[in-house]
Amino acid sequence: MLHIFLDKTKKRSFTRQIYTAIREKILSGELEAGKSLPSSRDLSRELCVARNTVLTAYDMLVSEGTVYSVAGSGFYVSSGVKCEPRSISVDDQQTASLSDFVITEKTINFDSGLPALDLFPRSKWNRTVSRAFMNAPVSALGYDDPQGRPEFRSVLCAYLKKTRGISCKPEQIIVTAGTKQGLSLAAKCLLDSRSEVWIENPSNANVKQIFSYHTEKITPFEVDAQGLQPKLFPVLGKPTLIFTTPSHQFPMGGILPMQRRVELTRFARKSGAYLLEDDYDSEFTYDAPPSNSLFELDGEHVIYLGTFSKVLFPSVRLGYLVAPLCLVPQIRELKRMADHHTNSTYQLALMQFIENGDLERHIRRMKKEYKNRRDCLLELLHTRFGEHVRIHGAAAGMHVVAEFEGAAFTGERIRRLLQSGVYVAPVENHSLTKGNHAHQIILGYAGLTTDAMARGLDLLKAELQLDTHLHPST
Amino acid sequence: MLHIFLDKTKKRSFTRQIYTAIREKILSGELEAGKSLPSSRDLSRELCVARNTVLTAYDMLVSEGTVYSVAGSGFYVSSGVKCEPRSISVDDQQTASLSDFVITEKTINFDSGLPALDLFPRSKWNRTVSRAFMNAPVSALGYDDPQGRPEFRSVLCAYLKKTRGISCKPEQIIVTAGTKQGLSLAAKCLLDSRSEVWIENPSNANVKQIFSYHTEKITPFEVDAQGLQPKLFPVLGKPTLIFTTPSHQFPMGGILPMQRRVELTRFARKSGAYLLEDDYDSEFTYDAPPSNSLFELDGEHVIYLGTFSKVLFPSVRLGYLVAPLCLVPQIRELKRMADHHTNSTYQLALMQFIENGDLERHIRRMKKEYKNRRDCLLELLHTRFGEHVRIHGAAAGMHVVAEFEGAAFTGERIRRLLQSGVYVAPVENHSLTKGNHAHQIILGYAGLTTDAMARGLDLLKAELQLDTHLHPST
Repeated sequence: MLHIFLDKTKKRSFTRQIYTAIREKILSGELEAGKSLPSSRDLSRELCVARNTVLTAYDMLVSEGTVYSVAGSGFYVSSGVKCEPRSISVDDQQTASLSDFVITEKTINFDSGLPALDLFPRSKWNRTVSRAFMNAPVSALGYDDPQGRPEFRSVLCAYLKKTRGISCKPEQIIVTAGTKQGLSLAAKCLLDSRSEVWIENPSNANVKQIFSYHTEKITPFEVDAQGLQPKLFPVLGKPTLIFTTPSHQFPMGGILPMQRRVELTRFARKSGAYLLEDDYDSEFTYDAPPSNSLFELDGEHVIYLGTFSKVLFPSVRLGYLVAPLCLVPQIRELKRMADHHTNSTYQLALMQFIENGDLERHIRRMKKEYKNRRDCLLELLHTRFGEHVRIHGAAAGMHVVAEFEGAAFTGERIRRLLQSGVYVAPVENHSLTKGNHAHQIILGYAGLTTDAMARGLDLLKAELQLDTHLHPST
Repeated sequence: MLHIFLDKTKKRSFTRQIYTAIREKILSGELEAGKSLPSSRDLSRELCVARNTVLTAYDMLVSEGTVYSVAGSGFYVSSGVKCEPRSISVDDQQTASLSDFVITEKTINFDSGLPALDLFPRSKWNRTVSRAFMNAPVSALGYDDPQGRPEFRSVLCAYLKKTRGISCKPEQIIVTAGTKQGLSLAAKCLLDSRSEVWIENPSNANVKQIFSYHTEKITPFEVDAQGLQPKLFPVLGKPTLIFTTPSHQFPMGGILPMQRRVELTRFARKSGAYLLEDDYDSEFTYDAPPSNSLFELDGEHVIYLGTFSKVLFPSVRLGYLVAPLCLVPQIRELKRMADHHTNSTYQLALMQFIENGDLERHIRRMKKEYKNRRDCLLELLHTRFGEHVRIHGAAAGMHVVAEFEGAAFTGERIRRLLQSGVYVAPVENHSLTKGNHAHQIILGYAGLTTDAMARGLDLLKAELQLDTHLHPST
């Protein structure tokens, strides 16, 4: 008698239940090496199942080597398959902290990267994706081109020429799963532990983190209201890579003037550095018309990073980089080893979306909407904080920086705000030299309604009133 | 007069054309610093466009700093914006070689990783994806959980328990863009330049390449017909990671017996090494019933890699890894920096596909089909090559290894076969010690019809008849 309990309410087949039960007994040592198993006839009677059910379970045990059969005699437990007891590997305490997300769907989230997801034309995109998938050639279901599908790259190429002034060939484009992947690929292609990297300060915190996987030599240089300042470049040192966000400096919001762009590309040519241009939200310009890209000025020293996270939606995980042709084979191979290629169906769908004019239509509509939301945010900030707030970088993009003289956005304050229901990111989080930006926060407005913004700012005001000198009258 | 030519057939707006033309003249130095631009009234008359069109173009130039305006006077070229001429960055010659793909849709492709794409239930999957996207919560459109959506991980967890005997918590699962990404993440998490890695020999060539980004200390150990041999483990050295494919050794096809699994996990526990288990095609077993995973024997020393490339289709780019809980926070962060997260819609769709039973139904159907295709391939090989061919690893998976005594599958021969219309991969490509596998090729059969296989093998036979000693009678 093996004392196997078959649970008829379980989804698992009887065969599998028998197999698992016997296996457990063998691995635990309860059934010792050399011991014979009951005959299939006996066990099937004992368990009231078909004899074949038992035989299949025995076959499974034999095929994995746990049990061996002797012709005409029966089934025996193999030697060497007793397994030391496992200690419990899952610690409930630790588990809880892992899934401890603090931003919920109810949080008023001033995150800078969130577009107006509720205004995204879901049905239209869905129809486009659906059609693209049904009409996709078989090759788009198999392992696809690591660089991205050639027909998509061609369409993207024309689109970039039209909208960003970028002259490139489809062979220079590598389709990525978004800007982070583009950054990783460029970093892996160009950097080793001896490489020097210069980055704008402040800069998106992820950027430094990605570079620091490769080198410790990361030098920040300060930006002003217009963006990076070539005159502040370190006098010594020879950077391999310079990271910049010329269209809308992140997070401070400057738009880099042409003089500095020319100086920057000239420096790159002279020093042999590559410029890594992150063009994350250049589609949205309000008080200024869209400027062209840095890539356009020097296609040989600029690696251009583009994304569809802001103009479509972040979870579409679709971006691209445009690189000088000499870097393409290596980046392409790194992309192949990273995840083989990016979603083929989405490439085909986006191709249609661009060709139909749907993408530009959506961008135009969002640009109008985001301008309204920005105006609304500025108005709300003004009525609530008056002269106590200063705004930076409002001319373009999806966020502003709000500066509260004398305030300090410490971790504790941010947590308290979060508990009260509003999330804002301190600029300090993105600063490489600590202490200069403690009084500034990033306010993304693209994803928020007027009502949500008003409530969020009320919560912010309530929190800041703790600093009495900010509002002596209240 | 600026001599600007407006092309009415172009898609670009007149504003953009004017902006670009003036900009080019300034960057090239044709319009020098300090020079005044024609008044908007004059230029609009000259070009026969509305005055506003010109004014907008001028505004764009001003906003980027190329031009400045003097109130009441007009527009002038800024200084410092002349740009050195770019050399031509796109070399046509090089471009051609980059897109030089040799495997076309017409090639009879014995690639081992290709499922039967024509039998995939496209409409059903499409409907599932479409519904998932339309019903997705807003959070599934924004930046999502780097580890994968919790509800998907829960369903996957139950599925793994049922089909692979894996007992884990959803918190241990990290959703990836496929096995290559899983390998990269595990490697990046565990390895540095001092780390020692042991890998099965032969092994998928990509595996060594991914590890070699981190360390040069990669030691191969030989497999036999049953898979890895713990008795051949190096006597010296202390591996950080051991790479293995116990369910169906790639490429040789062995299924690892229980004794060796126990020995292997015991070794891992003793030495502190992690076992990286790549379970790439374990769903398809024919002569043997499915065995369980290595992870099941020791969840603390095994990192399990799973993929949906074979059971759905490769371009779905959806896989996962199951890791000991202590490694999860670091791998999760590496995933976030690699590409933030994997496609949310597909996670939601696959969740439905699993819960509806559609996935298991499809796998059952494919298993039957692949068994037929395998039988057919073996029969075709037998009738064409008789005793000159020896087959390895046919009991499971989607490929076999065919061995032709005395033949040599050199690069030249593979290219010649490719030109004649058939692709086969030499085992030698995946061998870390050269010379032992020159007479063996991998024949993937899952994606090929009987007819295609027959034609492919005819081409192979014609090629091999050059080696007269193989077929003395013909």
